[in-house]
Amino acid sequence: MSKTLVSKRLVACATIIGKAQSFYEWKGKMVQDSEVLIIMKTTARRYPALERAIKALHPYEVPEIIGLSVKSGFAPYLAWIFTQVDQSKQN
Amino acid sequence: MSKTLVSKRLVACATIIGKAQSFYEWKGKMVQDSEVLIIMKTTARRYPALERAIKALHPYEVPEIIGLSVKSGFAPYLAWIFTQVDQSKQN
Amino acid sequence: MSKTLVSKRLVACATIIGKAQSFYEWKGKMVQDSEVLIIMKTTARRYPALERAIKALHPYEVPEIIGLSVKSGFAPYLAWIFTQVDQSKQN
Repeated sequence: MSKTLVSKRLVACATIIGKAQSFYEWKGKMVQDSEVLIIMKTTARRYPALERAIKALHPYEVPEIIGLSVKSGFAPYLAWIFTQVDQSKQN
Repeated sequence: MSKTLVSKRLVACATIIGKAQSFYEWKGKMVQDSEVLIIMKTTARRYPALERAIKALHPYEVPEIIGLSVKSGFAPYLAWIFTQVDQSKQN
Repeated sequence: MSKTLVSKRLVACATIIGKAQSFYEWKGKMVQDSEVLIIMKTTARRYPALERAIKALHPYEVPEIIGLSVKSGFAPYLAWIFTQVDQSKQN
């Protein structure tokens, strides 16, 4: 999924943090699931399209997709994100 | 701790990211600790009760409990969080 | 890097989350890199100095440095962060 989202310019970078364990209740039962945390760096403008793409690619009925807003950051890195997800350069 | 917090409807989901190493100074000495990062998904309204519960369950004198606010997210997932931590359904 | 930033009182705590895999395009090519996620706890006031220090220590030309703002947190822990990065105590 990560490579697809990068090549579609929906994220500039996707960082997979391996081996996560999630606890939650689903339909009344406690569930313990092996999961993967993916931290995706994109822009607010590209978020809606990214969310649709994740929903289409993800195996879950209700995947956990959460957006946090960046308050500060290394300017050249933030500029690079904008360049990478710029739709006009979509290959 | 994670299972307890889920069953008490203080969090909808707790995701444990294993094997973290923390560096910090404690009482003037550099400390390197093996720790576990737990990402807990809840609502702003349930946060105070969650913080009290973590403090009661956590072995540290001053545990690291930090709340970040969600800016955007997959609507059905966010709705599910609210349903799961709704106190009126506390078993 | 983490120990240096703690001893320079630029961060109160640095938590290294090991074994991350990042996908991104660099100069037109898809790259898959083994990386490390470091979650650094500091104050908004110390962030500019922290960013300069990371840039000086980091091997990348454009390192990913992102700041998120804390919305809520365990008061004694937040107070501890402010004490630890208080420049007047720099050794």
